[in-house]
Amino acid sequence: MKPEELIKLTVSEAATAIRDGATTSELLVGAFLARIDARNEAVGAWAHIEKDYALEQARRADQVRGFGNGTGPLHGVPIGIKDIIDTRDYPTENGCPLYEGNKSRRDAACVAALKSAGAIVLGKTVTTELALMTPSATHNPIDLERSPGGSSAGSAAAVADLMIPAALGSQTAGSVLRPASYCGIYGFKPTFGLISRNGVLMQSHTLDTLGLLARSIDDLALLTDCLSAQDPNDPVSYARSQPHVTKMGLSDPPLAPTFAFVKTPAWPEYADQGMQEAFAELKDFLGPVCEEIEIPGLDNVIEWQRIVQLAENAAYYGPLQDRGRGQLSDGLNARLDEGARVPVRDYISAVASREKAYEAMFEVFDTYSAILTPAAPGPAPLLSEGITGSPIFDGLWTYLGMPAISVPLLEINGLPIGVQLVGLRQDDGRLLRTARWLATRLENEESQSA
Amino acid sequence: MKPEELIKLTVSEAATAIRDGATTSELLVGAFLARIDARNEAVGAWAHIEKDYALEQARRADQVRGFGNGTGPLHGVPIGIKDIIDTRDYPTENGCPLYEGNKSRRDAACVAALKSAGAIVLGKTVTTELALMTPSATHNPIDLERSPGGSSAGSAAAVADLMIPAALGSQTAGSVLRPASYCGIYGFKPTFGLISRNGVLMQSHTLDTLGLLARSIDDLALLTDCLSAQDPNDPVSYARSQPHVTKMGLSDPPLAPTFAFVKTPAWPEYADQGMQEAFAELKDFLGPVCEEIEIPGLDNVIEWQRIVQLAENAAYYGPLQDRGRGQLSDGLNARLDEGARVPVRDYISAVASREKAYEAMFEVFDTYSAILTPAAPGPAPLLSEGITGSPIFDGLWTYLGMPAISVPLLEINGLPIGVQLVGLRQDDGRLLRTARWLATRLENEESQSA
Repeated sequence: MKPEELIKLTVSEAATAIRDGATTSELLVGAFLARIDARNEAVGAWAHIEKDYALEQARRADQVRGFGNGTGPLHGVPIGIKDIIDTRDYPTENGCPLYEGNKSRRDAACVAALKSAGAIVLGKTVTTELALMTPSATHNPIDLERSPGGSSAGSAAAVADLMIPAALGSQTAGSVLRPASYCGIYGFKPTFGLISRNGVLMQSHTLDTLGLLARSIDDLALLTDCLSAQDPNDPVSYARSQPHVTKMGLSDPPLAPTFAFVKTPAWPEYADQGMQEAFAELKDFLGPVCEEIEIPGLDNVIEWQRIVQLAENAAYYGPLQDRGRGQLSDGLNARLDEGARVPVRDYISAVASREKAYEAMFEVFDTYSAILTPAAPGPAPLLSEGITGSPIFDGLWTYLGMPAISVPLLEINGLPIGVQLVGLRQDDGRLLRTARWLATRLENEESQSA
Repeated sequence: MKPEELIKLTVSEAATAIRDGATTSELLVGAFLARIDARNEAVGAWAHIEKDYALEQARRADQVRGFGNGTGPLHGVPIGIKDIIDTRDYPTENGCPLYEGNKSRRDAACVAALKSAGAIVLGKTVTTELALMTPSATHNPIDLERSPGGSSAGSAAAVADLMIPAALGSQTAGSVLRPASYCGIYGFKPTFGLISRNGVLMQSHTLDTLGLLARSIDDLALLTDCLSAQDPNDPVSYARSQPHVTKMGLSDPPLAPTFAFVKTPAWPEYADQGMQEAFAELKDFLGPVCEEIEIPGLDNVIEWQRIVQLAENAAYYGPLQDRGRGQLSDGLNARLDEGARVPVRDYISAVASREKAYEAMFEVFDTYSAILTPAAPGPAPLLSEGITGSPIFDGLWTYLGMPAISVPLLEINGLPIGVQLVGLRQDDGRLLRTARWLATRLENEESQSA
């Protein structure tokens, strides 16, 4: 296979190609490194990468396969790791000068899980400052004048630009789904507690959720199963059978799914005109399987997410601020100061309201297979605006702990917009199955109208 | 059996006597009601009780047994319920005029569990104002001039005064173990999350723990097993096999247990002189199986418990204060005001520090079977002091979620003092076994020296 073919492979395809001898891990990793050489100066997706070390791992993977030893489901396939996730091979600098040169002696649980499935950690992808709102130096590969979103900026840009088949990201408000939407790829935030956060920078214990950026739903399912394991070191990790996502995620639904189109209370103020039109078209196209509904109380949910994140940011990052306020951006300092002033009663009420708010979802899912809602207010903002876009359409589902996927289905003037689908907690497989049904339905339509 | 014998029965003994036909539930309940008639005016342990209704339940229990139907482990035995726990038979007034006449349509999960084991809810026991520090009108039956402690004041006084064989209480700092200590009975706070709090007044979701007041360790084990079940309606309820406490709790330890005597950082300021001497004697008596150790970091634990309780009290009771500040005591208003001013960073750090602090316990339990520490600073304070005593020796173990028992082993001038034993989380059976060993050891000593 030629390098230009290799870099287009998904994780599943690459793993199969290595397993079948159609390529080697060394050729695959070499192709991605060449792509990075050619493109990273313009895109700026990578924080740390060591070519020789990556190739050495690839050669070792090929040797293992050559010996006829057993191989894991990701054997020899490179993956990118957001630079807030501890790795023993590379520094973890959290997008913040206070962590310059910071290196962990241990891999985070999620990195160890990927390695034990055979994956090769290619390098660390750029994060915004402490995974918050200050933009990174990353460019959106679809349009280099635009933002890739945040905070998983490098992960999304690298996957979209064919520098890596998939990457780990994290979401506290909308840091996986928004960049996926802006960069035209898949973003998946599984159920809160499915992937252990042990070894990951904590900005909000109530909200932080690890997620994935990839170019196919098959990859999201495969990687989720590799990453899913109860971990006593993360108190929100829950017991589950394993693996379970691939089987349902790749199956066909017994009945056509139904969609609850939810505009959310953010719509009037935030929804871009083009995005509104694109969603109206999508709803028309889907016909009776998609109905617009209103879920009462979502305005509270948006506010509770905001309060919880603000206050927990202040609690976890406040000590950094105490140590080196001058090393943090003005925007971040202002945010942390605001968080420290959140009245403790409001914060506790916001945390304590979560389970009751989630219960309201059961009624929706009695009727519908998934909630359908925007992943972002519109296409990627221009870098010159100095923002990474708003997570307003994502944060409420993060707060509720529900699995959410951004499916790259819509476009406005050549710029992608993701369709967010949201499922019930611990029902990640069904959500991926529904997303796959939707993506296939739209592909068929496109090929028919072409 | 005569009434004066019946009221001395433990729960286990009473259940056996009913099962064997040695008495009936009606005779038993009648004996307790007569005792209450004779004593409650002086003690003030009961908030709500309806004699006819209680007797009607007892007669129905006797009928069921008469039909030869299966009976539960508590069949026909009356239990008291702290008046912050919802019951459909009786009002739940939470020791606060804002809840006057408040009646729930449903039994709390713990009440339903007791009923389904065959228990008869005799009535509601007096709580301090909203289960906090303002004294109730209850007297300590050992010395009517003294406080029974708080907040499970009525539960402890009723059990100590033979008005009921056992009662439910609750502990957020020291509200089960302290009254047990002052009243000379057993108090048990199982592992955090073992008894569902669904249907119980919430004052602190991080700390609130249901517990038991009784006159034997056998009863604590039996009742704990009846109350232990995972409940999805209480997010801190955890999965466990059931029942499991009785079996280990009533067995003999394979080796003599060892005790880590922990004075805690509260000792110098709080420990009463008589209490200090009593514990020194106990330590001497136990000899090599009891060693004094210091656990580093307990000063932080005491402070974290204080901050979490203060802030969560303000969050959960603040709305009551907003509605009717004048109906709350000055002390409570001041406390809630103070709680509302806790900086959110401090609160979040205090909550987030818990698991790490608990990890330090593993090292202690590698060497020792249980922590041995006071249940209260000294004997019960005089009512004229206007206090319910300090929970300072209990709150740290509540924060850590560890099971704790107060064993009525010591006395100062005729006033009881409890010895608190603390175990590892989810190891409640072993803690009860260790407590039983210790109680037996001291009884043997007494009978030898007598």
